[in-house]
Amino acid sequence: MTAQPVFLKACRGEPVGRPPVWLMRQAGRYMPAYRRVREKYGLLEIIRTPELAAEVTLQPISQFPLDAAIIFSDILPPLQGMGLDLTFEPGKGPVIGNPIRDTRSIDLLGTPPATETMGATLEAIRLVRSELTSRNVPLIGFAGAPFTLASYAIEGGGSRSYTRVKSLMFREPAAWKRLMTKLVTVQTDYLLRQVEAGAQALQVFDSFVGLALGPDDYRHNVLPYTRALLQGIARSGVPVIHYSGGTGAYLEVVNEAGGDVLSVDWRVSLAEVRHRLGADRVLQGNLDPVALFAPWRELRTHIDTVLRDEGGTGRHIFNLGQGILPETPMENVTRLIDYVKGEQ
Amino acid sequence: MTAQPVFLKACRGEPVGRPPVWLMRQAGRYMPAYRRVREKYGLLEIIRTPELAAEVTLQPISQFPLDAAIIFSDILPPLQGMGLDLTFEPGKGPVIGNPIRDTRSIDLLGTPPATETMGATLEAIRLVRSELTSRNVPLIGFAGAPFTLASYAIEGGGSRSYTRVKSLMFREPAAWKRLMTKLVTVQTDYLLRQVEAGAQALQVFDSFVGLALGPDDYRHNVLPYTRALLQGIARSGVPVIHYSGGTGAYLEVVNEAGGDVLSVDWRVSLAEVRHRLGADRVLQGNLDPVALFAPWRELRTHIDTVLRDEGGTGRHIFNLGQGILPETPMENVTRLIDYVKGEQ
Repeated sequence: MTAQPVFLKACRGEPVGRPPVWLMRQAGRYMPAYRRVREKYGLLEIIRTPELAAEVTLQPISQFPLDAAIIFSDILPPLQGMGLDLTFEPGKGPVIGNPIRDTRSIDLLGTPPATETMGATLEAIRLVRSELTSRNVPLIGFAGAPFTLASYAIEGGGSRSYTRVKSLMFREPAAWKRLMTKLVTVQTDYLLRQVEAGAQALQVFDSFVGLALGPDDYRHNVLPYTRALLQGIARSGVPVIHYSGGTGAYLEVVNEAGGDVLSVDWRVSLAEVRHRLGADRVLQGNLDPVALFAPWRELRTHIDTVLRDEGGTGRHIFNLGQGILPETPMENVTRLIDYVKGEQ
Repeated sequence: MTAQPVFLKACRGEPVGRPPVWLMRQAGRYMPAYRRVREKYGLLEIIRTPELAAEVTLQPISQFPLDAAIIFSDILPPLQGMGLDLTFEPGKGPVIGNPIRDTRSIDLLGTPPATETMGATLEAIRLVRSELTSRNVPLIGFAGAPFTLASYAIEGGGSRSYTRVKSLMFREPAAWKRLMTKLVTVQTDYLLRQVEAGAQALQVFDSFVGLALGPDDYRHNVLPYTRALLQGIARSGVPVIHYSGGTGAYLEVVNEAGGDVLSVDWRVSLAEVRHRLGADRVLQGNLDPVALFAPWRELRTHIDTVLRDEGGTGRHIFNLGQGILPETPMENVTRLIDYVKGEQ
């Protein structure tokens, strides 16, 4: 019988000897092995081919002594199943060809089961689990939070001012409710199926909600749906991590959404988060991803700050504050992981 | 003798019967009169032609009963005087043709006096002052904060991850210090010359520093320079407003930079800011600019929240949390200003 992985223990708030460590977007372009696969296949092609998604998921696990794997996918493919056209354009990021621009398009969105629309990712989860079990590395499944998906669906891609998504939210509250409810339905089903397929923890990404919304609009227009999603997937029995980007000024409100772990970005001090949410809350984060471009002395100072600022509670999963960047030097990833695992 | 304008009284923390109101980027594309000028002239052409800059500065003052005017310009033209090539590309925003990519380019940056490089803006200030004095509307001068300018100079334009600017900051601390010191020199001189030319208040824009940096990096690499700038211009005798974007999770640190007024974005509740900085601090902000796209009932709720959340101290200047957006409906601007001026 193998020991319970430190990552899963930390998610549940059980005592751990050191903080577990994994990195958001750890299978990514900073790795030569990943770039070799990407030279041959498009992003959606990899996601839609279980063997390729499984291979890429395992690449960082083979390279680094990480405490968790995360299934290789993206937050946006579930929108395809709802009827939206998704492409990834080089240098431009995701583009929705037929973005939502009126309330009628919201009524036309489908909510098909994930087994029909996200089967490749579910199959990839099944494929990697046997390999990961033999290494005693737990697997994280994930999906986008309702606001983040709604933003892409309405803006048609990334945004700087979030004018369209917020305008719809302000002008058409009934349609907003229907859209967010549909997203909760689709994402709850998708995440539960990921657990059935073998995911041992789940992370929900609200990637930039706090760059778009202040606390009152978050509370009224986002919180009820994120909470419904987190509650809906809690019945799977696996730990749930809630990543909330840009919300450092109102984490008490975000905290009401629930989840076993709150994952925060680097724009807020972990000491401040600990102070505001208390010693019991399990936190994940929050190294600035650009700190990995620094010389070791400077990087180490940033790592030490994160380790110190969680407050000595042991209720902490070490991670970045956002996904690792494509140009990140590999050797700094190695040093980061070794240092966190050697510490304490 | 005319009464002291309510805006200047509020800046100094003197009692006012109602909050003054003006809007960041109030001379802008949401106004048909502005668009007509922009059809004939480029942005830099307007900025570099005192008569055009003066005309555009006065447009919103003629249209709305605003409590302050702000000289029409942009934060980036001072970089041209330092040796950087600046263009504004339609749909893309500002582009620096020769961005800083090594420490040697920092040593080559000049620090010529504003009278040589920003003469058109200084002349525009002189032109509008006589017109504004007859209307008893005070004039605000402005400039970019050192970090925001350094970010554009190094990234070569807008950025999402701020990888280049932060990498230079982490890897080359001595060069970073030289760059920030040069920016403080140039901007201090520029702002003092604006006061000599007739500006009756100054605003320093650190537009997105908090989207880029966490609190520790802000404290070590930005705060000393912003503080030096704010202290340097304090000797002009006019009130100084410090706009700090994205820093809602560490406003106590930002507050140490000084200034008479702290201007914050909508990503933090003004009630939280008031609670953390105390009843004496004069605050500016912080309506979500997208709230101006909402129906009046929803917009009014947002305005009421801002008015209530400042905490009844009267130490508040009503403004947006960021510049007004190009597609903003004119009639909502009118209603906003009338409502704030009629309230209380």
